[in-house]
Amino acid sequence: MIRISIIGFGNVGKYVYEALQAAPDMKVCGIVETPNVPVPQGMNDLWITDIKNVRDKGDIDVAVLCLPSRVCPDAAETLLKMGISTVDAYDIHSDIWKEKSRLDAVAKEAGKAAVIAAGWDPGTDSVLRALMEAMAPRGISYVDFGPGMSMGHSVAAKAIEGVENALSMTIPAGAGVHRRMVYVQLKSGADITKVTQMIKADPYFSHDETHVKQVDDITALFDMGHGVRITRKGSCGNTHNQIMEFSMRINNPALTSQVLVSCARAVTKQAPGCYTLIEIPVIDLLPGEREDLVNRLV
Amino acid sequence: MIRISIIGFGNVGKYVYEALQAAPDMKVCGIVETPNVPVPQGMNDLWITDIKNVRDKGDIDVAVLCLPSRVCPDAAETLLKMGISTVDAYDIHSDIWKEKSRLDAVAKEAGKAAVIAAGWDPGTDSVLRALMEAMAPRGISYVDFGPGMSMGHSVAAKAIEGVENALSMTIPAGAGVHRRMVYVQLKSGADITKVTQMIKADPYFSHDETHVKQVDDITALFDMGHGVRITRKGSCGNTHNQIMEFSMRINNPALTSQVLVSCARAVTKQAPGCYTLIEIPVIDLLPGEREDLVNRLV
Repeated sequence: MIRISIIGFGNVGKYVYEALQAAPDMKVCGIVETPNVPVPQGMNDLWITDIKNVRDKGDIDVAVLCLPSRVCPDAAETLLKMGISTVDAYDIHSDIWKEKSRLDAVAKEAGKAAVIAAGWDPGTDSVLRALMEAMAPRGISYVDFGPGMSMGHSVAAKAIEGVENALSMTIPAGAGVHRRMVYVQLKSGADITKVTQMIKADPYFSHDETHVKQVDDITALFDMGHGVRITRKGSCGNTHNQIMEFSMRINNPALTSQVLVSCARAVTKQAPGCYTLIEIPVIDLLPGEREDLVNRLV
Repeated sequence: MIRISIIGFGNVGKYVYEALQAAPDMKVCGIVETPNVPVPQGMNDLWITDIKNVRDKGDIDVAVLCLPSRVCPDAAETLLKMGISTVDAYDIHSDIWKEKSRLDAVAKEAGKAAVIAAGWDPGTDSVLRALMEAMAPRGISYVDFGPGMSMGHSVAAKAIEGVENALSMTIPAGAGVHRRMVYVQLKSGADITKVTQMIKADPYFSHDETHVKQVDDITALFDMGHGVRITRKGSCGNTHNQIMEFSMRINNPALTSQVLVSCARAVTKQAPGCYTLIEIPVIDLLPGEREDLVNRLV
């Protein structure tokens, strides 16, 4: 059994816990949260309130980081230096190479492995983009997200003056273009016309077609479903019009968590260093014997 | 530049040649064919008529086997023992593990690497099946092929008494069930009713819904387009109804050849041994610097 610590027990952490319960080869050996978070019912035997004590409930092979992206690299560094392999779903695309390079050196020094950016985008979508390019080296790929809630855009809308709560839906308009549907619950006395103007002027929204709608209660709209469509039309040698498409409709944090858990398995099979998902053989994500997997899946 | 020899210059061999012309990091350094095949125009400088002389037109890093599946493993063994890495699109699913295990030992002994079953199914479809299972570990995947010509079924129909020429189309009926549309050109005096009965009784067709149609000229129907749809509906932890789908419409030998060429690049990056596509990181299939690939695709 691979011994796992869950670092952070928010939305993703809870789904990681569920995915681990369903995994035949892994065991939860600790959950780390900050002292202000109340211990959930039945979790006393796993609960740890300081990352320094991550081994207090038993030895750990892999720490699954269920933390906001911006704090993941430092937490990974801390854990790697403690001799624990790490997996995270760091999603700041522009900084992945920089953070991967930094953690690669830390991991090698510690003789452990790390997987970074192990969600669905970045993550499994990255594998699909790379595979499609290997199948049709010249051509154009489009990634269309949604319909689904964008956390970043929702937070940006919520920060606008007069907004009590907000939810921003990403609507795919095709060919990588997206429309934003922003649902806002206003503070008493706020003016929807003014709020709409300010949202449309915000850098998060100013480049996209944006619609703002006032609702009484944002929580009534809450749904964690999301989706993506990746299309590529390209050529092999002199042969054009090779057409491929991947699409999915999924519960967003549940899939992110499952990819983290599959990568927690894979990380135990990698040489010391830090990897993105496109640098790991997909077979390493799965439980079971190599012979069975090749016979069943190849 | 990776120095490539093309072994066999039939349909796939010709598309491999085209894909290699478009690859920025590979060079054709020989084409091996049997002496009875006439040298195509402009190919004299590359043409070799005995596999023993595979290095006659220059040193070789990788041999791309464009041969019928049944002769691939022995050809791979011969070339590996000569110190040349190999790639093939061996497609007899039931024997892949056996042949991979045999070639693994040969490759390790030779200090070279081999990739086996590197087409689209087995091949890139295998990667997709494995990835989808890592994303939703419990559930059912379906693979629906077509519409497209099945070489095996066409050959089986052609072998029926009274059949001059035949083409069998695979038509997807959903959930992994397929219908066979068999177009036959009859020999003079043959009876379509009797031919239809014999085709439907043949083990290649007896388990599927099969329709037989008589045509004057099979060559008028010829088209190498094919397709596949892979669907999975499964669960992550306690979250059900995670739905994903991959589909493509492609020129069949052109895609097979492109996957072979991408794997010819990847094989140079593997430790000695024999690999299927699910055992290779997808990044290794692509040309270019790791940093650029991670920045662009992850």
